[in-house]
Amino acid sequence: MASVKKAAKATEQYLHRIFTIPEAPDSTLGRIEKEISENLAGFLGDRIVATNNALTDIENDFCDATLPEEPEFVSDHMHHLLDKLVSQSVHTSSPSFIGHMTSALPYFILSLTKLMVGLNQNLVKVETSKAFTPLERQVLGMMHNLVYQEQESFYQQWMHSANHSLGAFCSGGTVANITALWVARNNLLKADGSFKGVAREGLFNAFKHYGYDGLAILVSARGHYSLKKSADLLGIGQENVIEIPTDEFNKIDCQKLLVKCRELTEKNIKILSIVGVAGTTETGNIDPLDKLADIAQQYQCNFHVDAAWGGATLLSNKYRPLLKGIERADSVTIDAHKQMYVPMGAGLIVFKDPTAVSAIEHHAEYIIRKGAKDLGSHTLEGSRPGMAMLVYSCLHIISRPGYEMLFNQGIEKANYFADLIDQHSDFELITRPELCLLTYRYVPESVQKILKTGTSLQQAKINVLLDKLTKIIQKRQRENGKSFVSRTKIEAARYDGAKTLVFRVVLANPLTSREILVDILQEQCELAKESISLLPEFNEYI
Amino acid sequence: MASVKKAAKATEQYLHRIFTIPEAPDSTLGRIEKEISENLAGFLGDRIVATNNALTDIENDFCDATLPEEPEFVSDHMHHLLDKLVSQSVHTSSPSFIGHMTSALPYFILSLTKLMVGLNQNLVKVETSKAFTPLERQVLGMMHNLVYQEQESFYQQWMHSANHSLGAFCSGGTVANITALWVARNNLLKADGSFKGVAREGLFNAFKHYGYDGLAILVSARGHYSLKKSADLLGIGQENVIEIPTDEFNKIDCQKLLVKCRELTEKNIKILSIVGVAGTTETGNIDPLDKLADIAQQYQCNFHVDAAWGGATLLSNKYRPLLKGIERADSVTIDAHKQMYVPMGAGLIVFKDPTAVSAIEHHAEYIIRKGAKDLGSHTLEGSRPGMAMLVYSCLHIISRPGYEMLFNQGIEKANYFADLIDQHSDFELITRPELCLLTYRYVPESVQKILKTGTSLQQAKINVLLDKLTKIIQKRQRENGKSFVSRTKIEAARYDGAKTLVFRVVLANPLTSREILVDILQEQCELAKESISLLPEFNEYI
Repeated sequence: MASVKKAAKATEQYLHRIFTIPEAPDSTLGRIEKEISENLAGFLGDRIVATNNALTDIENDFCDATLPEEPEFVSDHMHHLLDKLVSQSVHTSSPSFIGHMTSALPYFILSLTKLMVGLNQNLVKVETSKAFTPLERQVLGMMHNLVYQEQESFYQQWMHSANHSLGAFCSGGTVANITALWVARNNLLKADGSFKGVAREGLFNAFKHYGYDGLAILVSARGHYSLKKSADLLGIGQENVIEIPTDEFNKIDCQKLLVKCRELTEKNIKILSIVGVAGTTETGNIDPLDKLADIAQQYQCNFHVDAAWGGATLLSNKYRPLLKGIERADSVTIDAHKQMYVPMGAGLIVFKDPTAVSAIEHHAEYIIRKGAKDLGSHTLEGSRPGMAMLVYSCLHIISRPGYEMLFNQGIEKANYFADLIDQHSDFELITRPELCLLTYRYVPESVQKILKTGTSLQQAKINVLLDKLTKIIQKRQRENGKSFVSRTKIEAARYDGAKTLVFRVVLANPLTSREILVDILQEQCELAKESISLLPEFNEYI
Repeated sequence: MASVKKAAKATEQYLHRIFTIPEAPDSTLGRIEKEISENLAGFLGDRIVATNNALTDIENDFCDATLPEEPEFVSDHMHHLLDKLVSQSVHTSSPSFIGHMTSALPYFILSLTKLMVGLNQNLVKVETSKAFTPLERQVLGMMHNLVYQEQESFYQQWMHSANHSLGAFCSGGTVANITALWVARNNLLKADGSFKGVAREGLFNAFKHYGYDGLAILVSARGHYSLKKSADLLGIGQENVIEIPTDEFNKIDCQKLLVKCRELTEKNIKILSIVGVAGTTETGNIDPLDKLADIAQQYQCNFHVDAAWGGATLLSNKYRPLLKGIERADSVTIDAHKQMYVPMGAGLIVFKDPTAVSAIEHHAEYIIRKGAKDLGSHTLEGSRPGMAMLVYSCLHIISRPGYEMLFNQGIEKANYFADLIDQHSDFELITRPELCLLTYRYVPESVQKILKTGTSLQQAKINVLLDKLTKIIQKRQRENGKSFVSRTKIEAARYDGAKTLVFRVVLANPLTSREILVDILQEQCELAKESISLLPEFNEYI
């Protein structure tokens, strides 16, 4: 019994220590942190093991659902994390990992995050965030300004107004898109006469009151999957997200959109929203936003722009014109954790009209009381961290011209890479970059000739084989661990819209050099030669 | 022109540096970080200014919506942040800030966060998270085990199964509750005959197909406001969240619930879900979960438990019985950033049935393809950070018995504080702690007597005055900056359910000592005496 008491006392002291006594600089954790601080790239390069471990092997290290009954020392736990987790993580900030929208982070972000977590503010209300609330409102103002470029007086009037909001921070683009369509739905099906509005009465009553036979969301076939998720969540139904075909440049076909709008209206289906894409996830292209705004105006419906990835391009004066018309959107989604070099978890939405968010306003007795400036009354999420601080700091430290330089260089690099591919006899460029994203595939020269001249049956057969090849090359390159490109399946204009598996590259990392791009292509060539031998069906073509 | 080029070159070099050259230890940022690492409490204590600055004054520092046209040096920016932001933030980790669910963090969390951000993984898919995916699945398994205590074989079967998920991580309790009701709605209104299910066809068709005249969500009057938000979002309507009165212990009145269930069923309104609350936000009480499970079974409806705050209590063997019946819930919300000492942004939900989430499954060509183990196919959010690592580390370093010790001490402390209040002649305990949360108010002894013996008109008049007094004291205490309690308005059982403004205290910070509690009460006494003089209407009662 005495020993039980003694053990309990020891645990108590240990627990007190983890809340009061900082990690010593020479502790394992202290040393790791120092390594990260002094040379993150080196730390990650050394620690992330570039071996080909199958996921099922890794799972063996994470298969115990038992709750630990013994406290673990911090240093022991750190060794465990380095060994089992860090070593088997993805080197997202490596300049040769050009397959995703997550890239390198500026160094100061690491220290700032530590400060942010140390402060542990909760942005749902002023009481737990104080200055972070006006800061977040300012960042929303700046991002609103980036999109809508209103007069200074506009921002002075609305930015800090208690019952208004120029937008909302959230964990990411999906929540931002949901928020956009939620606001659009609630404003469309608002209170009217005896009907108290969809927010209070729900969709069934709303349909009965307004007499619609359905609602529709229109977006190009390149729209992000979060739109279907939103339609499901909001009770509209995934099938009512209507995909409009794209032209050869992966932009929505406005003629087909108009035909569809007419058809739906005749069927008494109300168009809830036309969603423009500013930087499609798969090809990086931007819809003709100005034309979409015209059509939305003609059909008096909401116009939302999903610029989760491409929206930050507005910071580049040179490329801003590509997004012309975005300033006519009712709302715009932008992810700061994509092109703005902020870590994961920094999505946001801005609304043209500061009163739009009243459609989703919520209050409670203990927080976000009416008239208070609490940000939580206009967000989908409740408690939220102070991520806005990181966006604020990046905007100030990098500044608009700094972002412009980074983006312009990324786009130039993408064009350089596209040219490399075009000039290479064994590669085929599938989509040319409009921003810093492109797609391509490996097709041996001899096969390219057959594809040009062969029958459509032959073409189809070859394309099935090429899809297999692309998949193998991409997987092997990932497993080699030296570099990474992603893959997706898109309708290729040059193959009459046949679904084609392609490599997908995003050139957002400022440290990705032209030499690295040459190497990546070279590696793919070598992998292709090895891989083709695994596909004997190729023999008849090469 | 030459100077423009030179300036551009300088900016380019500067930008390259922020991605490649770490902050030197003797830079401003380096020094700040060192201070945070070595003595966070001291850093925050020194830096957060305890002055009474009005929010409107702080807003003046955050009122410029212009995008910065000049890059700022990191060190200059840091001084700015310290001066304008940190100094005006809320000292959430101070042991005398006992008003919210956010408390102190263990020291190792700061360094771990830095590691997490340095790795910048994206948990939406394996490709950008690798070992983080099995890690998150393991943490979900552990949390599932905490709630449901299934056999080891259950976890071996389901934890890493590609098309299943034991739950979902998310940014917080609100998203967790939305996810729970989304899954419940889609499982209730599932595909049936020619009807393809609510996810695909939407709510209007679902109602027509199933012939319901409405859906209802039943929860006690103490339910969290996120449930109404969920009902709005999901197209069910806020009015269809039906609040059932609570008993004198702030627990749902099961008799009234049964009456309501019968009434709704007779009206052809289908009960979508009965939501139990395990730790109400305002009083910390736990609903009779076992009885709720019985009623849900009787009405064959979904049973969800919102244990965002109280769920972690399951880690305490001593207090676990308070939540008996939670293991019968279809889903349970738990926020790790509340009682589990993880920073803001770590919510989660667990599902009893590993197949439940198939009701909200989503796929896309480029990610979360069918059959892949990507976590993103069963989450409301898309891209997400690796917060699960912090929960994993806390569970290992603190361990279950460690958590138990911390929780038990918190509850003991709450009881000690309740006794202090009870024994004090000028305070009135409104709700006794069941966990570590309690409410009370200041009522001068003489006024207490009148409240006991006066007419109900007198009582009502006095209560209006007392509400004013509570509000002033709470505000002044917050503005003094030494300590913080929150306030809310609840139906007080002792005043026949009249809405009463009360102080609300959460004793989650392990560093809050009994001495601090005595001081806080003493400060409130003094503030009360000053404040009463501002309310001349009190003169007739004291």
